Amino acid sequence: MMYIFIFINFQYNQIVITIDFSQRGSCSLTDFLYFQLKARILDGNLTPNQKLPSKRSLASHLGVSVITVQNAYEQLIDEGYVYSAEKRGYFVTELEALSSSDSGHSQMDRRKTTAFQSEQVFLEEGDLSNKTEGSIRTGKPKENLEEACLKTIINLQDNHIHHELFPFSLWSRLMRKVLQDSKERILSPLPPQGLWELRQAIASYLKTFRNMVVDPEQIIIGAGTEYLYSLALQLLGKNLRYGVENPGYLKPSRIMGALQVQWCPLAMDGAGITPQELEEKGINVVLVSPAHHFPTGIIMPIRRRQELLVWARSGSRYIIEDDYDSEFRFTGRPLETLFSLDASSGKGQQDHVIYLNTFTKTLTPSLRISYMVLPESLVKTFHQNLGFYSCTVSSIEQLTLARFIHEGHYEKHLARKKNHYRNLRDNLLFYLNKSSLASRISISGKDTGLHFLMEVNTSASSPQLQIMLKKTGIQVTFLNQYFHEIPKERGLPVLVINYSALKKEQIPVLVKLLEGVVNQ
Amino acid sequence: MMYIFIFINFQYNQIVITIDFSQRGSCSLTDFLYFQLKARILDGNLTPNQKLPSKRSLASHLGVSVITVQNAYEQLIDEGYVYSAEKRGYFVTELEALSSSDSGHSQMDRRKTTAFQSEQVFLEEGDLSNKTEGSIRTGKPKENLEEACLKTIINLQDNHIHHELFPFSLWSRLMRKVLQDSKERILSPLPPQGLWELRQAIASYLKTFRNMVVDPEQIIIGAGTEYLYSLALQLLGKNLRYGVENPGYLKPSRIMGALQVQWCPLAMDGAGITPQELEEKGINVVLVSPAHHFPTGIIMPIRRRQELLVWARSGSRYIIEDDYDSEFRFTGRPLETLFSLDASSGKGQQDHVIYLNTFTKTLTPSLRISYMVLPESLVKTFHQNLGFYSCTVSSIEQLTLARFIHEGHYEKHLARKKNHYRNLRDNLLFYLNKSSLASRISISGKDTGLHFLMEVNTSASSPQLQIMLKKTGIQVTFLNQYFHEIPKERGLPVLVINYSALKKEQIPVLVKLLEGVVNQ
Repeated sequence: MMYIFIFINFQYNQIVITIDFSQRGSCSLTDFLYFQLKARILDGNLTPNQKLPSKRSLASHLGVSVITVQNAYEQLIDEGYVYSAEKRGYFVTELEALSSSDSGHSQMDRRKTTAFQSEQVFLEEGDLSNKTEGSIRTGKPKENLEEACLKTIINLQDNHIHHELFPFSLWSRLMRKVLQDSKERILSPLPPQGLWELRQAIASYLKTFRNMVVDPEQIIIGAGTEYLYSLALQLLGKNLRYGVENPGYLKPSRIMGALQVQWCPLAMDGAGITPQELEEKGINVVLVSPAHHFPTGIIMPIRRRQELLVWARSGSRYIIEDDYDSEFRFTGRPLETLFSLDASSGKGQQDHVIYLNTFTKTLTPSLRISYMVLPESLVKTFHQNLGFYSCTVSSIEQLTLARFIHEGHYEKHLARKKNHYRNLRDNLLFYLNKSSLASRISISGKDTGLHFLMEVNTSASSPQLQIMLKKTGIQVTFLNQYFHEIPKERGLPVLVINYSALKKEQIPVLVKLLEGVVNQ
Repeated sequence: MMYIFIFINFQYNQIVITIDFSQRGSCSLTDFLYFQLKARILDGNLTPNQKLPSKRSLASHLGVSVITVQNAYEQLIDEGYVYSAEKRGYFVTELEALSSSDSGHSQMDRRKTTAFQSEQVFLEEGDLSNKTEGSIRTGKPKENLEEACLKTIINLQDNHIHHELFPFSLWSRLMRKVLQDSKERILSPLPPQGLWELRQAIASYLKTFRNMVVDPEQIIIGAGTEYLYSLALQLLGKNLRYGVENPGYLKPSRIMGALQVQWCPLAMDGAGITPQELEEKGINVVLVSPAHHFPTGIIMPIRRRQELLVWARSGSRYIIEDDYDSEFRFTGRPLETLFSLDASSGKGQQDHVIYLNTFTKTLTPSLRISYMVLPESLVKTFHQNLGFYSCTVSSIEQLTLARFIHEGHYEKHLARKKNHYRNLRDNLLFYLNKSSLASRISISGKDTGLHFLMEVNTSASSPQLQIMLKKTGIQVTFLNQYFHEIPKERGLPVLVINYSALKKEQIPVLVKLLEGVVNQ
């Protein structure tokens, strides 16, 4: 282990960057530098549009490699904290300006944060041995460590996965096997739909877990749901009128924007979008997530599902069913998919639903594997019109995932993961309910998927609350950000609590921080 | 090793499928079944629109698993030899009808092929130990084996790679390391441009090998060149008028068709497309492959490159430079890329070239990794308009490739591969030149990339020649198939000899077969 104690003051008109690397615990140099810089941006020690030192000079002053600095800067750029200007260097982004009533807090928080920094120790998710080593080495009480750890990294927004929840060594073993056994497949161009092995594994998974009867020939493998959305648009035709849920997942409409496809938002009642509005707005294709609407958590009841199918069948209309996190249903049996409802109908009736799902939520978001199940009548159209596209997922990963599913690991993995998230959710709800927030919050959409909504009875607006939380180190989005129009306040602020990246031991501190912000 | 001897006759109105699995050599059951079925389709034993046995019944009759049959059928479907009809089963595709003057050959060839089948042994590329075992076990002379092997599998069309040319064990080791060391990266969502490590590795590779000065921030990683083409179209705007080389690589125009983008073909002179036609046709964006035009092999001379840049700069115009196989230049130094020519110009002049390249040719086509280098002015536009897209390449493979490049393996791999292909090409040219074909053929475009053109002085048309070759077991495309209009004969037939999948020991037999077809 390398310890580096460096305190640097750049003189006159330059940034004072003081970083004590001895405090980095089990953090990598890059991660520690990144967290430190981010903390200084959030607490205002680094001010908007301030120029950061060049990668080379910061690296040489801190005694770390240029790559370390570059990686930290890169991460900050990716997250929007820093921007780079052509030939001029790196600068701090201007984050949303605080309202004037907030500036008092801002000053106070800044002092608090600065005072706190000398105590700061970052616990990053390394492997367990490292984490233990970190705690022992620094000799600080556990609570303090966690609080420090939380300072900048409670992320209730991204789909980050805990490393205990990804089967690294098993995955590694399967990949090695694939590289040994499937040389020919790996060296050949990919068929447009993806490899048969994976499509068969998915078909049998869908049979067992979603009660869907699907031929592997109906399945198209693609590098992420976004990519498959763009394929679906090309398949169905770009001159149609598409409808999206409002509020809802924003990416499909951004994709449609980028592809210049006509789309419009559809209002939701308690059961989802309404057939009336589909008719009124002359929609040809609608995108829905009936198993668990994002972000409201609405589960579309069977009656509305049937109404949607009736709508689709009364014309050459299509439903794109995004089943993105249906694997994590904690209460009751899953409802039949629109795809199955459609397929189980009489011949000539079916063929109106395209089903989409992903391994982002169940494995890891950086494994770019999603799939689309086409109704039989569209399979030929796919081959005729889009069969020239190569599949976008590498054969090594397709074959590894196929083995993972086929050998029963996926099933066990899902059970373990579901159990983990159920516990996490229960724990979080328990702490929230016994906290001083209990009387001021109202929870909904908690029975499926990895997020729920929390309405907060407060006089602060959503943006105010968001900034205050960000300054406390909590990254979270609000319901009003998922409307397709410019976000506006609709009643009380509603937080979208995505707990997939949360650690159990962070919960008490998270609730304490929420109390601090909401009750102040 | 399992040996299966099965001769089956389906009675009355059913297909007679006689497969002697003892002859499969080192072929897998699936591959052998696939080759056998394909041979019967090509030689006419299985006739167009004939129904094939169901997967289950063929499997049970042949004593193989349903999966074996399914995989073989799947492969045949992917290659277009078989189609499946909803609920009715699998059928033989109607291949291009032979012209009536050809039917005599057809009958003759069919008899020849059938007689030949009893001798047939398939050598598939397994690992070397298997191959040796196969030869010893069957006890046939090597020449005979090779000739048999060639019967259906000389592929001068696909980008298949020899397994000796992919570093399986090294790749496996690097992947294992990545899974051990980069847990955090693997569990986090991907930044839209791809991982910094890989972009940095590519930047330094471009510096060394293409003399291109590129910041990693200008690089976008994507799952295949096709995907990046679609991103580039979204980035530049879909209301522009795109121009493509004619003849040329057909996929970009198919993508533009699927995305409903306006495009038109541009005629080529000996130096490539002409600035005059760009002006005349009102093109805003042109797609070119100046390092090695596909399929003519034309290398765009510096003067034409400069003319193109002048054209681009005289308006808000762009050049998309596809540098797909420039790594394999066998003679002389590579010409400067359009991207570099553009970037080295005075400030305010540059920013008109998007550079594209891929690892398909240099590693394997099933590894879906390509990259695009944007001019600096487009980087911001990318983040603003398309920054919502997740990168389509999994982090495990990005990090593995980054290490592969960074640790110097890629450089060695390229050198080895280039050497292999140079030898292969020289050998093929040597055999062609000493054959009876020498006076009837004319070779061009052989100095770069993995294919060359071979014009043949014959009275047969391209389609006639193609069918005759296919029946001899040679899969090859012709120049006239790469025009954007309906293929028509333009002078003598010109074969596009893509030798990337060819094995050295196949060359004598290939040349003999070519002689047989051309001289008959």
